[in-house]
Amino acid sequence: MTKVIDFQTDPSKYRHWRVEYDGPVANLFMDVDENGGLFDGYQLKLNSYDLGVDIELADVIQRMRFEHPEVKTVVMQSGKDKVFCAGANIRMLGGAAHAHKVNFCKFTNETRNTFEAAEVDSGQKYICAVRGACAGGGYELALACNYIMLTDDSSSNVALPEVPLLAVLPGTGGLTRVTDKRKVRRDLADVFCSIEEGVKGKRALDWRLVDEVVPNSKFDAAVSERAHEFAANSAKADVEKGITLTPLDRSFGHDSVTYSLVEVAIDRAGRKATVTLHGPDTPAPASMDEVAAQGANTYLLRLARELDDAILHMRLNEMEIGLLALRTQGDPDQLLAHEQLLLDNKDHWLANEILKYWKRVLKRVDMTSRSLVALVEHGSCFAGVLAELLWSVDRSYMMEGEFEGDNRPLATIKLASSNFGDYPMGNDLTRLQTRFLGTPEAVDAAKAAIGTDIDAEAAQDLGLVTYIMDDIDWEDEIRIFMEERASFSPDAMTGMEANLRFAGPETMETRIFGRLTAWQNWIFQRPNAVGKDGALQRYGTGVRGDYNMQRV
Amino acid sequence: MTKVIDFQTDPSKYRHWRVEYDGPVANLFMDVDENGGLFDGYQLKLNSYDLGVDIELADVIQRMRFEHPEVKTVVMQSGKDKVFCAGANIRMLGGAAHAHKVNFCKFTNETRNTFEAAEVDSGQKYICAVRGACAGGGYELALACNYIMLTDDSSSNVALPEVPLLAVLPGTGGLTRVTDKRKVRRDLADVFCSIEEGVKGKRALDWRLVDEVVPNSKFDAAVSERAHEFAANSAKADVEKGITLTPLDRSFGHDSVTYSLVEVAIDRAGRKATVTLHGPDTPAPASMDEVAAQGANTYLLRLARELDDAILHMRLNEMEIGLLALRTQGDPDQLLAHEQLLLDNKDHWLANEILKYWKRVLKRVDMTSRSLVALVEHGSCFAGVLAELLWSVDRSYMMEGEFEGDNRPLATIKLASSNFGDYPMGNDLTRLQTRFLGTPEAVDAAKAAIGTDIDAEAAQDLGLVTYIMDDIDWEDEIRIFMEERASFSPDAMTGMEANLRFAGPETMETRIFGRLTAWQNWIFQRPNAVGKDGALQRYGTGVRGDYNMQRV
Repeated sequence: MTKVIDFQTDPSKYRHWRVEYDGPVANLFMDVDENGGLFDGYQLKLNSYDLGVDIELADVIQRMRFEHPEVKTVVMQSGKDKVFCAGANIRMLGGAAHAHKVNFCKFTNETRNTFEAAEVDSGQKYICAVRGACAGGGYELALACNYIMLTDDSSSNVALPEVPLLAVLPGTGGLTRVTDKRKVRRDLADVFCSIEEGVKGKRALDWRLVDEVVPNSKFDAAVSERAHEFAANSAKADVEKGITLTPLDRSFGHDSVTYSLVEVAIDRAGRKATVTLHGPDTPAPASMDEVAAQGANTYLLRLARELDDAILHMRLNEMEIGLLALRTQGDPDQLLAHEQLLLDNKDHWLANEILKYWKRVLKRVDMTSRSLVALVEHGSCFAGVLAELLWSVDRSYMMEGEFEGDNRPLATIKLASSNFGDYPMGNDLTRLQTRFLGTPEAVDAAKAAIGTDIDAEAAQDLGLVTYIMDDIDWEDEIRIFMEERASFSPDAMTGMEANLRFAGPETMETRIFGRLTAWQNWIFQRPNAVGKDGALQRYGTGVRGDYNMQRV
Repeated sequence: MTKVIDFQTDPSKYRHWRVEYDGPVANLFMDVDENGGLFDGYQLKLNSYDLGVDIELADVIQRMRFEHPEVKTVVMQSGKDKVFCAGANIRMLGGAAHAHKVNFCKFTNETRNTFEAAEVDSGQKYICAVRGACAGGGYELALACNYIMLTDDSSSNVALPEVPLLAVLPGTGGLTRVTDKRKVRRDLADVFCSIEEGVKGKRALDWRLVDEVVPNSKFDAAVSERAHEFAANSAKADVEKGITLTPLDRSFGHDSVTYSLVEVAIDRAGRKATVTLHGPDTPAPASMDEVAAQGANTYLLRLARELDDAILHMRLNEMEIGLLALRTQGDPDQLLAHEQLLLDNKDHWLANEILKYWKRVLKRVDMTSRSLVALVEHGSCFAGVLAELLWSVDRSYMMEGEFEGDNRPLATIKLASSNFGDYPMGNDLTRLQTRFLGTPEAVDAAKAAIGTDIDAEAAQDLGLVTYIMDDIDWEDEIRIFMEERASFSPDAMTGMEANLRFAGPETMETRIFGRLTAWQNWIFQRPNAVGKDGALQRYGTGVRGDYNMQRV
């Protein structure tokens, strides 16, 4: 699997999903093209999916929010007759490298979280209308919807057959959502996750696996009724017209990816890459009407899309790059002016969508399994939303005082009100709250510094950066750090960072990424699952995996 | 490593720890015998430890609570000159099988939790007095203490060098306690966990890694002062005399372990074992004085010790037994009378210790990585504390109605007030609260049934058991379930059960066992750590591990 995976797509290229817009209701059909797999060697039968299918789904969801703000209810359903969705494609999983499997699961999890949160964030509620078999990753799609309706007939069911059938976990949030979202009684969950054939009809309702069961003959009418009912009761304001998410301005070089505002410079020998984010190239718009007129070209939306794409590209296509250094360059005040317009107009749908998108992009950074470092150089603009990156990274270095031959403005950090609530992490705390869990008074001190130019010494006093360094130390210290980091075991880094990044309270989201994912990763390494006689390899042969029976 | 590991010991056999009792202060010295390793092939240099060292520590802590209730402060310290503790022995880890490593870490984690909780549960506060190098598992010992004092000199430090040195995680709670107990700022935690040499003196205090730093010349006096100060301020009542934890009445057969109240019958071909707990063989004592006079022989303490030992034996010595079936037989009312005496006398130190010990034993059951099933047969006594087992297991089966040729009393369940708060799980909820997370009103319904004989039908209505079965179905259904369970991948079972058992809120404890452990297990499988050119194998050769550089 060495082909470059592109996370950009648009409806004209979809092979697996289609949407029928009907005023406030959107009907989203999963109709996977068997021959449309991202890689060779498998067919996407029975609406099973691979990363390519999920990239389209993520695009659908994103466009729903920006291009179709009139939508209040989305009905996810199958475009095929007998099956809802058979889950992740097993042959794809069997053939994929460990790192691909794990990153595939991470992306699909992020996509599930995105449509699950759409109701609260954007007033778009997802109904899953299940007809036919809905198994494994198929049921995990349903679990992430806000409301699940199941056809009451002999062939429609919900199931998590991974454990008995494949010796892996339902790893896209399935186990966690069964216990913590659906709150299924644990012994019933144990039964449910141990049976291949799943659960149907009334029992699925009694066990809290679905929200509503409807006879086949009345199913379509009931789904439509529910969709319109939810739309009518939605608190979402009516919006007539969205904006269009035009293609990104992006070009790939051998060691680089260049966007209009983001540059990625890859140093493969050093196993690191530098991601530079540029400040605004235009003054802040005067009004939200102007932002809407700029559309996808408006600064903060463009930057978010480019950064999002860059992170995903690095994750899936540059697996040996172990460290991402985040830099910014630009005018902090101009950046803050762009953000302030959105903050002042949070009740405007587009301002809300851009801010919520930044929340997601920043979470994507948090979740990126690479060592992250921020370099606060002269001329930088770690202000407001971009200051969040300082506390998303594992550590940060800031230039202190004049540097010989460097006539950029001295490095400063600038905080905004947004740093105190608009971009919560997966644990539902702000990054500053998480950072200062042991010294909550430090959050107040930072708040008192909103709007001031925080120089290196002040930033250190406030605890906003890890190290400040002068002209003499800067280059060597950072070089030594990066070399050392590159010499460590990538696995140990992954495990360490996953444990250090998310202190404080846990949410369903942190449990999915922290606990469930770790167990799944472990199982994805075990010969019982992935060995040559393991369950994934033997799937479809009719012969069970040959298991080492030691319990761990 | 096929030798049988015995979890029973007593001070006459200790090789690694000694205690000096000084009224309310106990001085606990770690002084590991290099040649006292549990297995051949490694020396326990520099106060490094293996499971044998930890079994002694667990015994010390347990006896402290029952045999020395006069103790209010425990000072954990090194019996060696230059080193506090170098952590888990690397050669032992390098040579151990995966399942042993994981179970070793689980037991050491349980032991850390036990002394960490001793302050709240029993009024025994642990001080860690660190002089010399305190690295890895050594610092994890300190982290689990309630107060850490560090000598301020050139050779005393605290460190978590696992990641740079060994390519594994500090997996005995280290990462979690750094972020969530000590609340160390995450970038400082990143630095701390990336440097082999650790942190000393004032910086250790500034970074919240220790609570107090004292110059070497004043260290002993300061520690003693602090110990007596804590003891003087303790809310713990003065108790003159403890009881003696006499040796267990236990015998091993080829397929069995037999205690006075617990029988383990092992079916290796079926990969399962039945654990039968017997009800009281004597009426409840009339008073706590009588309980104290019975000492270790008193029913509920004896049963707890026997069950605890049986579970540990199965975990470490019978790794291919994938399922434990829990049975009880006895008089439920007599059992409840024994428990009620303790519940009525919670302010009596010994009643408190026995109840808190049951809390720990039940958590040990919860954490046992085997499929657990309860069989509620006729003649059983799932009442009060033993009813907790019904919700500790993954699922349960209860006999319904008369069974031919069976003249035992019909199966019933009997609840007590203890089921609603005395034995919280690691998530700090009761097992019933966890079970009924989605239907909290079911907890109230169960509460209303306290003291009544709950027959099969009523138990099903109350949601207390998974299945009720009559004479015709009982044997076949259970046989089929057990055979099916034995056919599944043990790894998938471990991952599934770990995710389904602990719904609801997370605590530091659930994060250690759920998240940190899973990541550590994953890393313990990765060639970068355990492969022939991995860091653990190459440790001590001066050559770094040869790493696959893909990030996962």
